[in-house]
Amino acid sequence: MLPPKVSLFEVGPRDGLQNETSVSTQAKIALIEALADAGVKRIEAASFVSPKWVPQMADSGEVLRGISRRAGVCYSALTPNLKGLELALAAGADEVAVFAAASEGFSQKNINCSIEESIARFEPLLSRAKEQGIRVRGYVSCVLGCPYDGEIAPAEVARVADILHQLGCYEISLGDTIGVGTPLKARKMVETVAERVPVERLALHFHDTYGQALANILACLETGVSVIDTSVAGLGGCPYAKGASGNLASEDLVYMLHGMGIDTGIDLNKLAQAGRQISQQLGRQTGSKVARALGA
Amino acid sequence: MLPPKVSLFEVGPRDGLQNETSVSTQAKIALIEALADAGVKRIEAASFVSPKWVPQMADSGEVLRGISRRAGVCYSALTPNLKGLELALAAGADEVAVFAAASEGFSQKNINCSIEESIARFEPLLSRAKEQGIRVRGYVSCVLGCPYDGEIAPAEVARVADILHQLGCYEISLGDTIGVGTPLKARKMVETVAERVPVERLALHFHDTYGQALANILACLETGVSVIDTSVAGLGGCPYAKGASGNLASEDLVYMLHGMGIDTGIDLNKLAQAGRQISQQLGRQTGSKVARALGA
Repeated sequence: MLPPKVSLFEVGPRDGLQNETSVSTQAKIALIEALADAGVKRIEAASFVSPKWVPQMADSGEVLRGISRRAGVCYSALTPNLKGLELALAAGADEVAVFAAASEGFSQKNINCSIEESIARFEPLLSRAKEQGIRVRGYVSCVLGCPYDGEIAPAEVARVADILHQLGCYEISLGDTIGVGTPLKARKMVETVAERVPVERLALHFHDTYGQALANILACLETGVSVIDTSVAGLGGCPYAKGASGNLASEDLVYMLHGMGIDTGIDLNKLAQAGRQISQQLGRQTGSKVARALGA
Repeated sequence: MLPPKVSLFEVGPRDGLQNETSVSTQAKIALIEALADAGVKRIEAASFVSPKWVPQMADSGEVLRGISRRAGVCYSALTPNLKGLELALAAGADEVAVFAAASEGFSQKNINCSIEESIARFEPLLSRAKEQGIRVRGYVSCVLGCPYDGEIAPAEVARVADILHQLGCYEISLGDTIGVGTPLKARKMVETVAERVPVERLALHFHDTYGQALANILACLETGVSVIDTSVAGLGGCPYAKGASGNLASEDLVYMLHGMGIDTGIDLNKLAQAGRQISQQLGRQTGSKVARALGA
């Protein structure tokens, strides 16, 4: 049973641009506004990770403050810790997000601590967010494979997702960080997680590194999951495979969903236009096949 | 119910290279041999269309004669007419293929005659092939949309496929020539055709212009169809959308199928190696995301 409506969670301005050095604050603001004008209702607009680690995101406060807000749009920020949360709140983020891994190896290499330690660090953030009445989204990475640990058991993904949910994350985004998943494994993983966390609380964040993201999403839609993370123009790559593509392009998912009669509330042409603008800024061809086809 | 085994019909050396001017006869032969060494059992190796129309394929006879044949591999040739058939037979093609459109507009613009006229022209070829005991494959193009006529009714696809089947084509390859299909429409189209032509006689030839090909194939596998046309390295584009990608990369399909536990008999690493070689010859990045990810 397919969902009649799917909600896109647009990660282009954050996940997509966090490795780019040449994008001005004004260009980021213009991208976020163009996405909202295309009908995107949830946009990850900023990241309050330490500027020592991700200097490209040092202007996150300026970006959040600079946006002309559109009614009904949620502007989200990634916040690794309490300090990040305070900065996000001060800049006016509507919701924040924390991240953990389903794989011990990835947690150790990526955030220098165990899964349990990373979760323990979120607890003060989650308490403070609750006090402030701000929603927290939880990311779980490496749900279909890890560059260090290989295949990841669906039960382990479910365990980590469940902890984040129990701690108060209102939505858990399941990330195939290196894009290695295939349709049956993806569906099995979501089904396993949905035994512990209600499927209405789950989102999919599948990378397209092996070209499988759309097929994997299609296979998962029948579980009832109806929130999908994508990146306009396919912005953002996976740092673990040189030359490989990363995020699934929002345009390509919207095209599929609309073709299946599934509503997204998004104007595909305006979305593609937003992607074209930022791609031009980056001096790069869009990563969206739909945008290329429409642009002819 | 998914098929336990899927057979790939590799079109790279023909559909993929027919618009390339810089590929030597030796490079074509090397590609075909590398594909066979990777375990591909069906390869469209040549095209006996008039060299006036497609000069890049003028060496098709040389190619077919030059291959070191691998046991159990079928080397196929595209043949638009009786003359093409005679040349293909003389060069040792194991089977031949004819093409028709599911759309009047495409037939008129692409082969300058109506669908009925194009089919009538095949009849002498089909009779002669039958005399010679050579199998004929039939392509039907524009099964999910036409650049001139827009959407195409599944019943019309079924009608044309049925005629080709009745005339003696042993397999009908259903082409989403401009790659506009989406999963539910693709499955509905195959189901409709399968009411008139046994599904064991059907193949899918879906272009990836809008990034939908893998998802569309996934949706169709449950109908029982188990032959898929692909092109190594995603060789070959669609001339109707500038900058757009065309054929689905063989590597990307093999990766998905193997991940789903569906056997193809193909060694993915050797297949990707064959794609890398020809991409280097063309001085171009591979169109396969899997090949890019594996090549890191």
